[in-house]
Amino acid sequence: MNDIKQAPIGVFDSGVGGLTVVREIMRNLPTEKIVYFGDTARVPYGSKSKETVLRYSRQIVRFLGTQEVKAIVVACNTASAMALEEIKEEIDIPIIGVVRPGAKVAAEMTENKRVGIIGTQATVGSQIYRKLIQEIDPEIEVIGKPCPLLVPLVEEGWLKDPITDMVLERYLKELLSEDVDTLILGCTHYPLLRSNVRKLVGERVHLVNPAYETAQSLGKLLRENGIANDGHEEEEFPYRFYVSDMAERFTDFASTILPFDVSSAKKVNIEEY
Amino acid sequence: MNDIKQAPIGVFDSGVGGLTVVREIMRNLPTEKIVYFGDTARVPYGSKSKETVLRYSRQIVRFLGTQEVKAIVVACNTASAMALEEIKEEIDIPIIGVVRPGAKVAAEMTENKRVGIIGTQATVGSQIYRKLIQEIDPEIEVIGKPCPLLVPLVEEGWLKDPITDMVLERYLKELLSEDVDTLILGCTHYPLLRSNVRKLVGERVHLVNPAYETAQSLGKLLRENGIANDGHEEEEFPYRFYVSDMAERFTDFASTILPFDVSSAKKVNIEEY
Repeated sequence: MNDIKQAPIGVFDSGVGGLTVVREIMRNLPTEKIVYFGDTARVPYGSKSKETVLRYSRQIVRFLGTQEVKAIVVACNTASAMALEEIKEEIDIPIIGVVRPGAKVAAEMTENKRVGIIGTQATVGSQIYRKLIQEIDPEIEVIGKPCPLLVPLVEEGWLKDPITDMVLERYLKELLSEDVDTLILGCTHYPLLRSNVRKLVGERVHLVNPAYETAQSLGKLLRENGIANDGHEEEEFPYRFYVSDMAERFTDFASTILPFDVSSAKKVNIEEY
Repeated sequence: MNDIKQAPIGVFDSGVGGLTVVREIMRNLPTEKIVYFGDTARVPYGSKSKETVLRYSRQIVRFLGTQEVKAIVVACNTASAMALEEIKEEIDIPIIGVVRPGAKVAAEMTENKRVGIIGTQATVGSQIYRKLIQEIDPEIEVIGKPCPLLVPLVEEGWLKDPITDMVLERYLKELLSEDVDTLILGCTHYPLLRSNVRKLVGERVHLVNPAYETAQSLGKLLRENGIANDGHEEEEFPYRFYVSDMAERFTDFASTILPFDVSSAKKVNIEEY
Protein backbone atom coordinates (compact mmCIF):
# COMPACT_ATOMS: atom_id res chain seq x y z
CA MET A 1 0.00 0.00 0.00
CA ASN A 2 1.44 3.33 -1.04
CA ASP A 3 0.90 6.01 1.55
CA ILE A 4 0.62 9.33 -0.22
CA LYS A 5 2.09 11.07 2.83
CA GLN A 6 5.33 9.22 2.11
CA ALA A 7 5.46 10.49 -1.47
CA PRO A 8 8.05 13.14 -2.31
CA ILE A 9 7.56 16.81 -3.07
CA GLY A 10 8.50 17.70 -6.67
CA VAL A 11 10.52 20.91 -6.91
CA PHE A 12 11.70 22.41 -10.19
CA ASP A 13 13.65 25.36 -11.46
CA SER A 14 15.30 26.53 -14.65
CA GLY A 15 18.66 25.52 -13.19
CA VAL A 16 20.30 25.38 -9.81
CA GLY A 17 18.87 28.56 -8.30
CA GLY A 18 15.84 26.64 -7.05
CA LEU A 19 18.11 24.82 -4.65
CA THR A 20 17.80 27.87 -2.38
CA VAL A 21 14.12 26.87 -2.13
CA VAL A 22 15.07 23.22 -1.54
CA ARG A 23 17.36 24.41 1.24
CA GLU A 24 14.47 26.22 2.93
CA ILE A 25 12.15 23.19 2.54
CA MET A 26 14.82 20.95 4.08
CA ARG A 27 15.22 23.32 7.02
CA ASN A 28 11.53 23.95 7.60
CA LEU A 29 10.00 20.60 6.63
CA PRO A 30 12.76 18.13 7.49
CA THR A 31 10.52 15.06 7.27
CA GLU A 32 9.58 15.62 3.61
CA LYS A 33 11.24 13.80 0.72
CA ILE A 34 12.17 15.88 -2.32
CA VAL A 35 12.62 15.19 -6.03
CA TYR A 36 14.37 18.16 -7.64
CA PHE A 37 14.56 18.87 -11.36
CA GLY A 38 16.85 21.61 -12.67
CA ASP A 39 16.49 22.45 -16.37
CA THR A 40 20.22 23.08 -16.73
CA ALA A 41 20.14 22.38 -20.48
CA ARG A 42 17.76 25.25 -21.17
CA VAL A 43 18.66 27.67 -18.39
CA PRO A 44 18.01 30.61 -18.11
CA TYR A 45 14.25 31.10 -18.43
CA GLY A 46 14.43 34.76 -17.44
CA SER A 47 15.04 36.09 -20.93
CA LYS A 48 12.54 33.82 -22.70
CA SER A 49 8.92 34.28 -23.78
CA LYS A 50 5.85 33.09 -21.89
CA GLU A 51 5.08 30.51 -24.56
CA THR A 52 8.51 28.90 -24.28
CA VAL A 53 8.58 28.95 -20.47
CA LEU A 54 5.11 27.39 -20.38
CA ARG A 55 6.11 24.61 -22.80
CA TYR A 56 9.23 23.82 -20.76
CA SER A 57 7.31 23.87 -17.48
CA ARG A 58 4.69 21.46 -18.81
CA GLN A 59 7.41 19.01 -19.85
CA ILE A 60 8.92 19.15 -16.37
CA VAL A 61 5.56 18.68 -14.66
CA ARG A 62 5.02 15.58 -16.82
CA PHE A 63 8.44 14.29 -15.77
CA LEU A 64 7.69 14.93 -12.08
CA GLY A 65 4.42 13.02 -12.58
CA THR A 66 6.49 9.94 -13.43
CA GLN A 67 8.21 10.35 -10.05
CA GLU A 68 4.85 10.10 -8.26
CA VAL A 69 5.19 13.35 -6.37
CA LYS A 70 2.34 14.39 -4.06
CA ALA A 71 2.75 18.14 -4.63
CA ILE A 72 4.83 20.44 -6.81
CA VAL A 73 6.77 23.59 -5.97
CA VAL A 74 7.69 25.84 -8.88
CA ALA A 75 10.96 27.09 -7.39
CA CYS A 76 11.59 29.55 -10.20
CA ASN A 77 10.20 33.05 -10.19
CA THR A 78 10.03 33.19 -13.98
CA ALA A 79 8.12 29.91 -14.32
CA SER A 80 5.88 30.88 -11.40
CA ALA A 81 5.11 34.15 -13.14
CA MET A 82 4.57 32.73 -16.62
CA ALA A 83 3.30 29.16 -16.29
CA LEU A 84 1.78 28.46 -12.87
CA GLU A 85 -1.76 29.69 -13.51
CA GLU A 86 -2.14 27.53 -16.62
CA ILE A 87 -0.54 24.41 -15.15
CA LYS A 88 -2.64 24.62 -11.98
CA GLU A 89 -5.72 24.03 -14.17
CA GLU A 90 -4.14 21.04 -15.89
CA ILE A 91 -3.06 18.80 -12.99
CA ASP A 92 -4.70 17.07 -10.05
CA ILE A 93 -2.11 17.54 -7.31
CA PRO A 94 -1.44 20.73 -5.31
CA ILE A 95 1.08 23.08 -6.92
CA ILE A 96 2.50 26.33 -5.60
CA GLY A 97 5.01 28.83 -6.90
CA VAL A 98 7.40 31.20 -5.17
CA VAL A 99 5.66 34.39 -6.26
CA ARG A 100 2.43 34.34 -4.27
CA PRO A 101 4.06 33.58 -0.88
CA GLY A 102 6.60 36.35 -1.49
CA ALA A 103 3.92 38.80 -2.61
CA LYS A 104 1.78 38.07 0.46
CA VAL A 105 4.55 38.74 2.94
CA ALA A 106 5.66 41.90 1.12
CA ALA A 107 2.09 43.24 1.27
CA GLU A 108 2.01 42.54 5.01
CA MET A 109 5.42 44.08 5.70
CA THR A 110 5.28 47.38 3.86
CA GLU A 111 4.34 50.35 5.99
CA ASN A 112 4.58 53.15 3.45
CA LYS A 113 2.88 50.99 0.80
CA ARG A 114 5.86 51.10 -1.56
CA VAL A 115 7.35 47.74 -2.51
CA GLY A 116 10.33 47.12 -4.78
CA ILE A 117 10.94 43.91 -6.69
CA ILE A 118 14.14 42.81 -8.39
CA GLY A 119 14.25 39.78 -10.70
CA THR A 120 14.81 38.61 -14.24
CA GLN A 121 13.51 40.44 -17.30
CA ALA A 122 10.66 37.94 -17.63
CA THR A 123 9.57 38.02 -13.98
CA VAL A 124 9.60 41.81 -13.70
CA GLY A 125 8.10 42.27 -17.17
CA SER A 126 5.21 39.93 -16.30
CA GLN A 127 4.07 42.34 -13.55
CA ILE A 128 2.99 39.28 -11.57
CA TYR A 129 4.23 40.58 -8.19
CA ARG A 130 2.35 43.84 -8.75
CA LYS A 131 -0.82 41.98 -9.66
CA LEU A 132 -0.73 39.65 -6.63
CA ILE A 133 0.24 42.40 -4.18
CA GLN A 134 -2.48 44.72 -5.45
CA GLU A 135 -5.04 41.91 -5.14
CA ILE A 136 -4.25 42.05 -1.41
CA ASP A 137 -4.05 45.85 -1.17
CA PRO A 138 -4.69 47.94 -4.30
CA GLU A 139 -3.07 50.96 -2.67
CA ILE A 140 0.39 49.42 -2.61
CA GLU A 141 2.70 50.70 -5.33
CA VAL A 142 5.03 48.05 -6.75
CA ILE A 143 8.18 49.18 -8.53
CA GLY A 144 10.12 46.57 -10.50
CA LYS A 145 13.70 46.53 -11.78
CA PRO A 146 15.08 43.72 -13.98
CA CYS A 147 18.66 42.77 -13.00
CA PRO A 148 19.95 40.39 -15.69
CA LEU A 149 23.58 40.54 -14.54
CA LEU A 150 23.00 39.27 -11.01
CA VAL A 151 22.55 35.58 -11.88
CA PRO A 152 25.79 35.39 -13.89
CA LEU A 153 27.63 37.27 -11.12
CA VAL A 154 26.38 34.77 -8.51
CA GLU A 155 27.24 31.84 -10.77
CA GLU A 156 30.72 33.28 -11.32
CA GLY A 157 31.08 33.15 -7.51
CA TRP A 158 31.76 36.90 -7.21
CA LEU A 159 29.68 37.27 -4.07
CA LYS A 160 31.85 39.40 -1.82
CA ASP A 161 33.14 41.53 -4.63
CA PRO A 162 33.29 45.27 -5.36
CA ILE A 163 32.12 44.70 -8.97
CA THR A 164 28.98 42.93 -7.76
CA ASP A 165 28.36 45.75 -5.30
CA MET A 166 28.70 48.33 -8.10
CA VAL A 167 26.28 46.45 -10.35
CA LEU A 168 23.80 46.08 -7.49
CA GLU A 169 24.18 49.73 -6.58
CA ARG A 170 23.28 50.75 -10.12
CA TYR A 171 20.27 48.44 -10.24
CA LEU A 172 19.03 49.46 -6.79
CA LYS A 173 19.62 53.21 -7.15
CA GLU A 174 16.41 53.74 -9.07
CA LEU A 175 14.36 51.62 -6.66
CA LEU A 176 15.73 53.40 -3.61
CA SER A 177 15.00 56.80 -5.13
CA GLU A 178 11.38 55.57 -5.26
CA ASP A 179 11.48 55.29 -1.45
CA VAL A 180 10.46 51.61 -1.19
CA ASP A 181 10.47 50.26 2.38
CA THR A 182 10.23 46.59 1.31
CA LEU A 183 12.29 44.81 -1.33
CA ILE A 184 11.47 41.39 -2.77
CA LEU A 185 14.48 39.27 -3.81
CA GLY A 186 12.48 37.99 -6.78
CA CYS A 187 14.90 35.44 -8.23
CA THR A 188 16.11 32.27 -6.55
CA HIS A 189 19.77 33.27 -6.88
CA TYR A 190 19.33 36.54 -5.05
CA PRO A 191 19.20 35.26 -1.45
CA LEU A 192 22.90 34.50 -2.00
CA LEU A 193 23.39 38.27 -2.44
CA ARG A 194 21.38 39.13 0.66
CA SER A 195 24.28 40.65 2.61
CA ASN A 196 25.38 42.73 -0.41
CA VAL A 197 21.82 44.05 -0.76
CA ARG A 198 21.53 44.69 2.98
CA LYS A 199 24.74 46.76 2.92
CA LEU A 200 23.33 48.95 0.14
CA VAL A 201 19.76 49.44 1.34
CA GLY A 202 20.53 49.79 5.04
CA GLU A 203 18.45 48.47 7.93
CA ARG A 204 15.29 50.42 7.20
CA VAL A 205 14.26 48.34 4.15
CA HIS A 206 12.58 44.97 4.75
CA LEU A 207 14.05 42.22 2.57
CA VAL A 208 11.64 39.48 1.46
CA ASN A 209 13.07 36.06 0.54
CA PRO A 210 10.32 34.18 -1.33
CA ALA A 211 12.18 30.87 -0.83
CA TYR A 212 11.59 31.01 2.92
CA GLU A 213 7.97 32.10 2.54
CA THR A 214 7.37 29.32 0.02
CA ALA A 215 8.60 26.64 2.43
CA GLN A 216 6.15 28.03 5.02
CA SER A 217 3.27 28.01 2.51
CA LEU A 218 4.15 24.50 1.38
CA GLY A 219 3.95 23.23 4.97
CA LYS A 220 0.51 24.81 5.35
CA LEU A 221 -0.67 23.38 2.01
CA LEU A 222 0.45 19.85 2.92
CA ARG A 223 -1.27 20.00 6.31
CA GLU A 224 -4.49 21.39 4.81
CA ASN A 225 -4.54 18.56 2.26
CA GLY A 226 -3.72 15.96 4.94
CA ILE A 227 -0.62 14.84 3.06
CA ALA A 228 2.19 16.11 5.30
CA ASN A 229 4.78 13.44 6.05
CA ASP A 230 5.05 12.41 9.69
CA GLY A 231 8.61 11.20 9.24
CA HIS A 232 10.66 9.39 6.61
CA GLU A 233 12.68 6.34 7.44
CA GLU A 234 16.13 7.21 8.64
CA GLU A 235 18.09 4.81 6.47
CA GLU A 236 16.79 6.19 3.17
CA PHE A 237 18.37 9.29 1.61
CA PRO A 238 15.27 11.42 1.05
CA TYR A 239 16.51 13.72 -1.72
CA ARG A 240 16.85 12.95 -5.43
CA PHE A 241 18.25 15.35 -8.02
CA TYR A 242 17.65 15.40 -11.76
CA VAL A 243 19.01 17.79 -14.37
CA SER A 244 18.66 18.14 -18.13
CA ASP A 245 22.40 18.75 -18.60
CA MET A 246 25.28 17.47 -16.52
CA ALA A 247 27.62 20.43 -17.02
CA GLU A 248 30.14 20.36 -14.22
CA ARG A 249 29.81 23.95 -13.15
CA PHE A 250 26.21 23.36 -12.12
CA THR A 251 27.05 20.56 -9.73
CA ASP A 252 29.91 22.68 -8.40
CA PHE A 253 27.58 25.59 -7.83
CA ALA A 254 24.90 23.37 -6.30
CA SER A 255 27.39 22.24 -3.69
CA THR A 256 27.82 25.85 -2.58
CA ILE A 257 24.08 26.14 -1.87
CA LEU A 258 23.31 22.78 -0.27
CA PRO A 259 25.06 21.22 2.70
CA PHE A 260 25.96 18.10 0.69
CA ASP A 261 27.29 16.99 -2.65
CA VAL A 262 24.76 16.69 -5.49
CA SER A 263 27.12 15.05 -7.95
CA SER A 264 24.77 12.07 -7.89
CA ALA A 265 22.27 14.07 -9.98
CA LYS A 266 20.83 12.04 -12.86
CA LYS A 267 20.37 13.35 -16.36
CA VAL A 268 16.90 13.39 -17.94
CA ASN A 269 16.19 14.04 -21.61
CA ILE A 270 13.45 16.52 -20.78
CA GLU A 271 12.46 17.22 -24.39
CA GLU A 272 10.94 13.72 -24.50
CA TYR A 273 8.32 14.56 -21.88
CA MET B 1 15.80 24.36 -62.73
CA ASN B 2 17.22 25.22 -59.36
CA ASP B 3 20.69 26.69 -59.56
CA ILE B 4 22.60 25.70 -56.42
CA LYS B 5 24.63 28.92 -56.68
CA GLN B 6 21.41 30.80 -55.94
CA ALA B 7 20.74 28.80 -52.78
CA PRO B 8 21.26 30.57 -49.45
CA ILE B 9 23.99 30.09 -46.86
CA GLY B 10 22.66 28.68 -43.58
CA VAL B 11 24.12 30.42 -40.53
CA PHE B 12 23.32 29.43 -36.96
CA ASP B 13 24.14 30.45 -33.44
CA SER B 14 22.90 29.85 -29.91
CA GLY B 15 21.22 33.26 -30.01
CA VAL B 16 21.86 36.62 -31.57
CA GLY B 17 25.64 36.77 -31.17
CA GLY B 18 26.08 35.02 -34.52
CA LEU B 19 24.69 38.10 -36.21
CA THR B 20 28.18 39.58 -35.91
CA VAL B 21 29.19 36.78 -38.31
CA VAL B 22 26.19 37.51 -40.56
CA ARG B 23 27.28 41.15 -40.61
CA GLU B 24 30.75 40.14 -41.85
CA ILE B 25 29.29 37.81 -44.50
CA MET B 26 27.01 40.61 -45.73
CA ARG B 27 29.96 42.98 -45.98
CA ASN B 28 32.38 40.56 -47.58
CA LEU B 29 30.07 38.41 -49.72
CA PRO B 30 27.28 40.83 -50.60
CA THR B 31 25.82 38.64 -53.37
CA GLU B 32 25.08 35.70 -51.05
CA LYS B 33 21.65 34.99 -49.59
CA ILE B 34 21.49 34.04 -45.92
CA VAL B 35 19.11 32.01 -43.75
CA TYR B 36 19.91 32.67 -40.09
CA PHE B 37 18.74 30.56 -37.16
CA GLY B 38 19.24 31.80 -33.58
CA ASP B 39 18.43 29.30 -30.82
CA THR B 40 17.07 32.01 -28.55
CA ALA B 41 14.90 29.53 -26.61
CA ARG B 42 17.90 27.55 -25.42
CA VAL B 43 20.60 30.22 -25.31
CA PRO B 44 23.29 30.19 -23.95
CA TYR B 45 25.26 27.14 -25.09
CA GLY B 46 28.46 28.26 -23.38
CA SER B 47 27.67 26.70 -20.02
CA LYS B 48 26.27 23.43 -21.39
CA SER B 49 27.81 20.00 -21.99
CA LYS B 50 29.12 18.68 -25.29
CA GLU B 51 26.30 16.15 -25.51
CA THR B 52 23.61 18.82 -25.21
CA VAL B 53 25.28 21.26 -27.61
CA LEU B 54 25.69 18.46 -30.15
CA ARG B 55 22.01 17.46 -29.89
CA TYR B 56 20.87 21.06 -30.32
CA SER B 57 23.23 21.64 -33.25
CA ARG B 58 21.97 18.53 -35.05
CA GLN B 59 18.38 19.74 -34.73
CA ILE B 60 19.33 23.10 -36.22
CA VAL B 61 21.24 21.50 -39.09
CA ARG B 62 18.14 19.43 -39.86
CA PHE B 63 16.04 22.59 -39.87
CA LEU B 64 18.50 24.38 -42.18
CA GLY B 65 18.29 21.34 -44.46
CA THR B 66 14.58 22.09 -44.95
CA GLN B 67 15.62 25.57 -46.12
CA GLU B 68 17.74 24.06 -48.91
CA VAL B 69 20.92 25.83 -47.96
CA LYS B 70 24.04 25.17 -50.04
CA ALA B 71 26.50 25.52 -47.15
CA ILE B 72 26.38 26.01 -43.37
CA VAL B 73 28.31 28.37 -41.11
CA VAL B 74 28.35 27.49 -37.41
CA ALA B 75 28.49 31.08 -36.17
CA CYS B 76 28.89 30.07 -32.54
CA ASN B 77 32.24 29.34 -30.97
CA THR B 78 30.75 26.86 -28.51
CA ALA B 79 28.93 24.83 -31.18
CA SER B 80 31.98 25.03 -33.45
CA ALA B 81 34.10 23.67 -30.62
CA MET B 82 31.71 20.95 -29.49
CA ALA B 83 29.67 19.80 -32.49
CA LEU B 84 31.32 20.69 -35.81
CA GLU B 85 33.60 17.66 -36.18
CA GLU B 86 30.74 15.20 -35.68
CA ILE B 87 28.24 17.05 -37.88
CA LYS B 88 30.74 17.41 -40.73
CA GLU B 89 30.72 13.60 -41.03
CA GLU B 90 26.93 13.45 -41.09
CA ILE B 91 25.98 15.87 -43.89
CA ASP B 92 26.67 16.25 -47.60
CA ILE B 93 27.07 20.02 -47.93
CA PRO B 94 30.11 22.10 -46.93
CA ILE B 95 30.08 23.31 -43.32
CA ILE B 96 32.53 25.57 -41.50
CA GLY B 97 32.76 26.96 -38.00
CA VAL B 98 34.27 30.11 -36.59
CA VAL B 99 37.06 28.42 -34.65
CA ARG B 100 39.36 27.14 -37.40
CA PRO B 101 39.53 30.45 -39.33
CA GLY B 102 40.24 32.32 -36.10
CA ALA B 103 42.88 29.80 -35.03
CA LYS B 104 44.63 29.97 -38.40
CA VAL B 105 44.98 33.74 -38.37
CA ALA B 106 46.11 33.78 -34.74
CA ALA B 107 48.83 31.23 -35.56
CA GLU B 108 49.98 33.45 -38.46
CA MET B 109 49.92 36.67 -36.44
CA THR B 110 51.74 35.75 -33.25
CA GLU B 111 55.42 36.64 -33.20
CA ASN B 112 56.37 35.53 -29.68
CA LYS B 113 54.29 32.33 -30.07
CA ARG B 114 52.00 33.19 -27.15
CA VAL B 115 48.28 33.43 -28.01
CA GLY B 116 45.45 34.27 -25.61
CA ILE B 117 41.84 33.19 -26.12
CA ILE B 118 38.78 34.52 -24.30
CA GLY B 119 35.37 32.86 -24.65
CA THR B 120 32.65 30.94 -22.84
CA GLN B 121 33.34 28.22 -20.29
CA ALA B 122 32.53 25.55 -22.91
CA THR B 123 34.70 27.00 -25.69
CA VAL B 124 37.74 27.58 -23.49
CA GLY B 125 37.26 24.29 -21.62
CA SER B 126 37.14 22.37 -24.91
CA GLN B 127 40.75 23.44 -25.68
CA ILE B 128 39.73 23.53 -29.35
CA TYR B 129 41.66 26.72 -30.18
CA ARG B 130 44.80 25.26 -28.59
CA LYS B 131 44.39 22.04 -30.56
CA LEU B 132 43.88 23.75 -33.93
CA ILE B 133 46.65 26.32 -33.39
CA GLN B 134 49.14 23.64 -32.30
CA GLU B 135 48.26 21.57 -35.38
CA ILE B 136 49.66 24.53 -37.36
CA ASP B 137 52.62 25.21 -35.05
CA PRO B 138 53.15 22.98 -32.01
CA GLU B 139 55.46 25.56 -30.45
CA ILE B 140 52.72 28.13 -29.93
CA GLU B 141 51.45 28.36 -26.36
CA VAL B 142 47.71 29.01 -26.08
CA ILE B 143 46.38 30.47 -22.84
CA GLY B 144 42.60 30.47 -22.36
CA LYS B 145 40.38 32.44 -19.99
CA PRO B 146 36.59 31.86 -19.72
CA CYS B 147 34.68 35.14 -19.37
CA PRO B 148 31.05 34.23 -18.56
CA LEU B 149 30.01 37.77 -17.61
CA LEU B 150 30.84 39.39 -20.94
CA VAL B 151 27.81 38.12 -22.87
CA PRO B 152 25.30 39.37 -20.28
CA LEU B 153 27.13 42.71 -20.09
CA VAL B 154 26.92 43.13 -23.87
CA GLU B 155 23.26 42.07 -23.88
CA GLU B 156 22.56 44.56 -21.09
CA GLY B 157 23.96 47.20 -23.47
CA TRP B 158 26.68 48.31 -21.02
CA LEU B 159 29.30 48.69 -23.74
CA LYS B 160 30.92 51.99 -22.91
CA ASP B 161 30.77 51.47 -19.19
CA PRO B 162 33.29 51.48 -16.32
CA ILE B 163 31.79 48.28 -14.86
CA THR B 164 32.38 46.41 -18.12
CA ASP B 165 35.93 47.76 -18.22
CA MET B 166 36.54 46.55 -14.65
CA VAL B 167 35.18 43.07 -15.43
CA LEU B 168 37.30 42.91 -18.60
CA GLU B 169 40.36 44.12 -16.73
CA ARG B 170 40.00 41.33 -14.20
CA TYR B 171 39.52 38.69 -16.90
CA LEU B 172 42.42 39.97 -19.04
CA LYS B 173 44.89 40.59 -16.21
CA GLU B 174 45.93 36.95 -16.03
CA LEU B 175 46.28 36.66 -19.82
CA LEU B 176 48.37 39.80 -20.07
CA SER B 177 50.67 38.64 -17.29
CA GLU B 178 51.32 35.65 -19.55
CA ASP B 179 52.72 38.05 -22.15
CA VAL B 180 50.45 37.06 -25.05
CA ASP B 181 50.96 39.15 -28.20
CA THR B 182 47.75 37.92 -29.93
CA LEU B 183 44.27 37.70 -28.43
CA ILE B 184 41.35 35.81 -30.00
CA LEU B 185 37.90 37.27 -29.33
CA GLY B 186 36.52 33.74 -29.09
CA CYS B 187 32.81 34.46 -28.67
CA THR B 188 30.54 36.11 -31.20
CA HIS B 189 29.50 38.84 -28.77
CA TYR B 190 33.03 40.00 -28.11
CA PRO B 191 33.67 42.00 -31.28
CA LEU B 192 31.17 44.46 -29.78
CA LEU B 193 33.66 44.94 -26.93
CA ARG B 194 36.60 45.41 -29.27
CA SER B 195 37.32 49.02 -28.32
CA ASN B 196 37.12 48.20 -24.58
CA VAL B 197 39.58 45.37 -25.08
CA ARG B 198 41.86 47.55 -27.23
CA LYS B 199 41.98 50.19 -24.49
CA LEU B 200 43.10 47.58 -21.94
CA VAL B 201 45.62 45.62 -23.99
CA GLY B 202 47.20 48.56 -25.83
CA GLU B 203 48.36 48.61 -29.43
CA ARG B 204 51.00 45.92 -29.12
CA VAL B 205 48.52 43.01 -28.90
CA HIS B 206 46.94 41.72 -32.15
CA LEU B 207 43.18 41.23 -31.80
CA VAL B 208 41.66 38.39 -33.85
CA ASN B 209 37.97 38.58 -34.77
CA PRO B 210 36.94 35.08 -35.93
CA ALA B 211 33.76 36.49 -37.53
CA TYR B 212 35.77 38.41 -40.12
CA GLU B 213 38.10 35.47 -40.77
CA THR B 214 35.11 33.15 -41.15
CA ALA B 215 33.54 35.32 -43.84
CA GLN B 216 36.85 35.17 -45.72
CA SER B 217 37.05 31.39 -45.37
CA LEU B 218 33.45 31.01 -46.44
CA GLY B 219 34.12 32.95 -49.64
CA LYS B 220 37.07 30.71 -50.40
CA LEU B 221 35.04 27.55 -49.65
CA LEU B 222 32.21 28.62 -51.96
CA ARG B 223 34.58 29.43 -54.81
CA GLU B 224 36.46 26.13 -54.39
CA ASN B 225 33.18 24.22 -54.53
CA GLY B 226 31.99 26.23 -57.53
CA ILE B 227 28.89 27.37 -55.67
CA ALA B 228 29.57 31.07 -55.08
CA ASN B 229 26.65 33.26 -56.08
CA ASP B 230 27.32 35.62 -59.00
CA GLY B 231 24.58 37.97 -57.92
CA HIS B 232 21.10 37.75 -56.43
CA GLU B 233 18.18 39.52 -57.97
CA GLU B 234 17.83 43.04 -56.70
CA GLU B 235 14.12 42.97 -55.94
CA GLU B 236 14.29 40.04 -53.50
CA PHE B 237 15.30 40.60 -49.86
CA PRO B 238 18.12 38.07 -49.55
CA TYR B 239 18.10 37.54 -45.76
CA ARG B 240 15.72 35.43 -43.69
CA PHE B 241 15.81 35.14 -39.90
CA TYR B 242 14.46 32.35 -37.70
CA VAL B 243 14.56 32.02 -33.93
CA SER B 244 13.34 29.44 -31.42
CA ASP B 245 11.90 32.10 -29.09
CA MET B 246 10.49 35.49 -29.95
CA ALA B 247 11.53 37.30 -26.77
CA GLU B 248 11.57 41.00 -27.54
CA ARG B 249 14.99 41.77 -26.13
CA PHE B 250 16.59 39.56 -28.75
CA THR B 251 15.08 41.41 -31.67
CA ASP B 252 16.03 44.68 -29.95
CA PHE B 253 19.58 43.52 -29.53
CA ALA B 254 19.75 42.18 -33.09
CA SER B 255 18.89 45.62 -34.39
CA THR B 256 21.98 47.03 -32.66
CA ILE B 257 24.21 44.59 -34.57
CA LEU B 258 22.65 44.63 -38.03
CA PRO B 259 21.96 47.67 -40.19
CA PHE B 260 18.24 46.83 -40.46
CA ASP B 261 15.32 45.64 -38.37
CA VAL B 262 15.01 41.88 -37.86
CA SER B 263 11.59 42.01 -36.25
CA SER B 264 10.36 39.94 -39.18
CA ALA B 265 12.11 36.91 -37.67
CA LYS B 266 9.94 33.79 -37.69
CA LYS B 267 9.62 31.38 -34.81
CA VAL B 268 10.52 27.72 -35.30
CA ASN B 269 9.76 24.92 -32.83
CA ILE B 270 13.28 23.58 -33.02
CA GLU B 271 12.69 20.63 -30.70
CA GLU B 272 10.63 19.03 -33.47
CA TYR B 273 13.63 18.71 -35.79
